[in-house]
Amino acid sequence: MARSLDDETLTHRLILPRDANHHGTLYAGVLLSLALEAAYSAAYRAAGLNANLVLKRVLDVRCFEPVPIGRVVEIRGAEIHRARAQVIVAVYGSPLSDRPSPWMDGLMQFVQVDHTGRPEPLEQEPREGPLELHAPWLTLRERAMRLLAIRQ
Amino acid sequence: MARSLDDETLTHRLILPRDANHHGTLYAGVLLSLALEAAYSAAYRAAGLNANLVLKRVLDVRCFEPVPIGRVVEIRGAEIHRARAQVIVAVYGSPLSDRPSPWMDGLMQFVQVDHTGRPEPLEQEPREGPLELHAPWLTLRERAMRLLAIRQ
Amino acid sequence: MARSLDDETLTHRLILPRDANHHGTLYAGVLLSLALEAAYSAAYRAAGLNANLVLKRVLDVRCFEPVPIGRVVEIRGAEIHRARAQVIVAVYGSPLSDRPSPWMDGLMQFVQVDHTGRPEPLEQEPREGPLELHAPWLTLRERAMRLLAIRQ
Amino acid sequence: MARSLDDETLTHRLILPRDANHHGTLYAGVLLSLALEAAYSAAYRAAGLNANLVLKRVLDVRCFEPVPIGRVVEIRGAEIHRARAQVIVAVYGSPLSDRPSPWMDGLMQFVQVDHTGRPEPLEQEPREGPLELHAPWLTLRERAMRLLAIRQ
Amino acid sequence: MARSLDDETLTHRLILPRDANHHGTLYAGVLLSLALEAAYSAAYRAAGLNANLVLKRVLDVRCFEPVPIGRVVEIRGAEIHRARAQVIVAVYGSPLSDRPSPWMDGLMQFVQVDHTGRPEPLEQEPREGPLELHAPWLTLRERAMRLLAIRQ
Amino acid sequence: MARSLDDETLTHRLILPRDANHHGTLYAGVLLSLALEAAYSAAYRAAGLNANLVLKRVLDVRCFEPVPIGRVVEIRGAEIHRARAQVIVAVYGSPLSDRPSPWMDGLMQFVQVDHTGRPEPLEQEPREGPLELHAPWLTLRERAMRLLAIRQ
Repeated sequence: MARSLDDETLTHRLILPRDANHHGTLYAGVLLSLALEAAYSAAYRAAGLNANLVLKRVLDVRCFEPVPIGRVVEIRGAEIHRARAQVIVAVYGSPLSDRPSPWMDGLMQFVQVDHTGRPEPLEQEPREGPLELHAPWLTLRERAMRLLAIRQ
Repeated sequence: MARSLDDETLTHRLILPRDANHHGTLYAGVLLSLALEAAYSAAYRAAGLNANLVLKRVLDVRCFEPVPIGRVVEIRGAEIHRARAQVIVAVYGSPLSDRPSPWMDGLMQFVQVDHTGRPEPLEQEPREGPLELHAPWLTLRERAMRLLAIRQ
Repeated sequence: MARSLDDETLTHRLILPRDANHHGTLYAGVLLSLALEAAYSAAYRAAGLNANLVLKRVLDVRCFEPVPIGRVVEIRGAEIHRARAQVIVAVYGSPLSDRPSPWMDGLMQFVQVDHTGRPEPLEQEPREGPLELHAPWLTLRERAMRLLAIRQ
Repeated sequence: MARSLDDETLTHRLILPRDANHHGTLYAGVLLSLALEAAYSAAYRAAGLNANLVLKRVLDVRCFEPVPIGRVVEIRGAEIHRARAQVIVAVYGSPLSDRPSPWMDGLMQFVQVDHTGRPEPLEQEPREGPLELHAPWLTLRERAMRLLAIRQ
Repeated sequence: MARSLDDETLTHRLILPRDANHHGTLYAGVLLSLALEAAYSAAYRAAGLNANLVLKRVLDVRCFEPVPIGRVVEIRGAEIHRARAQVIVAVYGSPLSDRPSPWMDGLMQFVQVDHTGRPEPLEQEPREGPLELHAPWLTLRERAMRLLAIRQ
Repeated sequence: MARSLDDETLTHRLILPRDANHHGTLYAGVLLSLALEAAYSAAYRAAGLNANLVLKRVLDVRCFEPVPIGRVVEIRGAEIHRARAQVIVAVYGSPLSDRPSPWMDGLMQFVQVDHTGRPEPLEQEPREGPLELHAPWLTLRERAMRLLAIRQ
């Protein structure tokens, strides 16, 4: 079954001067913070209210276009992989209205931990087969699998 | 024609301790700030990239449920009325996963201004008939019309 | 007896670039946050240290003048109505030094709640007759009464 | 002539968890920021809208009482000394409702600079005689004069 | 020649409640923001004052230990690779006083861009041979090289 | 024995538009906040993890040079005096790359308090003789001693 839009978690944010670097575009520290919040929101929705997720690894964040202040940006997030105690989420910064390609994409791995901080299996079982994903999620999942293999 | 979901602007936000009051729930000052950003994002998408919108009036914001820290909240926003140089947007805080009703709703009026600050007609004409709206937008539009009539 | 200045709660704030929108004037999200803090301060002083007040409804906020960064603004706040478990506060953004009229005004309703979140009567009885108010509070109270009547 | 209350600049602020240290009381970094904003507001009002004031020296800030989150604090500010191109302002954190003495006081020196950063005389002449000050300003001015004498 | 400590850029930061998630430990969004600022500072020192660096890619960030509020953390940053128009920086969160291993490490790639946003060679030539690096930088550079090879 | 560099606590920070005043340089409220965090970090390292330090008095902060946005600043901090239950720390803003002198220096006094807020002796004894300090710490300690003598 193809993945429906309901599996995506959308966020819109207004980029203000307080979010900018000294060039008047979105500061990378704020970009990472926005990307993380969007990714966490997607993981939270995928794993359920009682999941206790923490960021384990940023596999990748790529910055393609500077975002000028005054723009409202859209970030799409989706679960692209699930294992016993972890979820991998991709985020995708939808192209700005006058640009052809995304301004950012990224891949983040969250694990569920118990109160002592040790990994704990998620309530929902990992899916039997892989998720069927549309673009851009398919490409991002393939990239995630390659990056995950690099452990040291 | 009925309004599709495409006319809505979605936002997800994680509520953190820095957003809380001393009871550990979402602080009203942050709630208003989140509601405004969601409303502006909806107005921005409705009016187009070149629109120069400023907040003229908060017609109403109602707080129904305290939001505990650690929750990811969803805010839906939609244009519910448009006149020559202004847009009215409603925001709706989708029910928390364990609650039956929204945690917040609100109504905000934005005007387009020129560089001297005077109202300027929007590029897109006001619609001929009223928008056909589903719940909760219909109720919110009726409320907006009653509140708008109170001018002094 | 006329209301003395002691019944007002004053706040001065410096508007910085981090408070600005991309036009270099006070961003509406920050404006609402400043207005709420000033209103809460007035309600807190009116209801006493042990009151447990939460925002129930923003009845109205109106934005009249853009505020450039670098300005110190003054916000006056005053209780304008009290009922069994609630206080209504008006806020008034004193005219900027080179402008004739206020840059903002607003009306906010706070309720006292117990630890389960249910309304709880305030310690101080509601006053027998209406408060005697000077401008601008009188006009704002009349507006509040009209807006309060719109419940749905 | 005695100094009237009109010569004071009042500020009320709500202390939130985002302002706290890990003991749940006002964090010193935020305290200094609040004290500076209150002092700047007082200097701004004393020196006029066109003054271009910058902080030159914090002569003193003393912390007397921890401020718990959830409190609304009041800071009073007043000009206590003026020379050719500078203003010295005192700030005073009014006693919390259940405490006998101030939670903070401080002394800050602002200078007016031109666009190259060099000191520039203020429009208003320094007063001929010293200001007549009430408590707590009198004590704070005496302290300021002693501290100012220590230059290296 | 071995790399001296002068090639490292140190940062100390106090973790406050405003930096925390709802478990009372450092929130991942703030962690990424701190890591980016430390990495940018190291890149800025390595590339010189006139370099115009922007973040191109986060190659990796790994979170090993939760950081409780109230701690002062140390982040070390160092340039580990330089090419024509880019610098790769590693960051290393020094072990907390009571823990044996780092709380975080990461790898970030910055490029120099001209005013149109296109890559521009750095003033300083890329070094002839590879930098001679001590632990932990050596391990982090090896990881960076493997991750850099994954382009799609 | 001469004081080694290990006794210093270094911090690097990027100055962003959100840190600026309306002249585009570091805002004094943020400067004080940065100075306090650097001083606290130095005191924390000097007094040990279990010390419970609170700011008692800012003895002095002097602002020498405006810091433009886009700069990475370095702040050095060092303990310059210790008594039974207190530590005095100096901070020094290293000269910007194109300037000959520091952009800021300051002196802050921290006390250790018990859970009731009363002063409590530090674990480490005060040193027998005075610390042997290099510039700039020597000058700053002399200034501190003169300022400390002014108590009222």
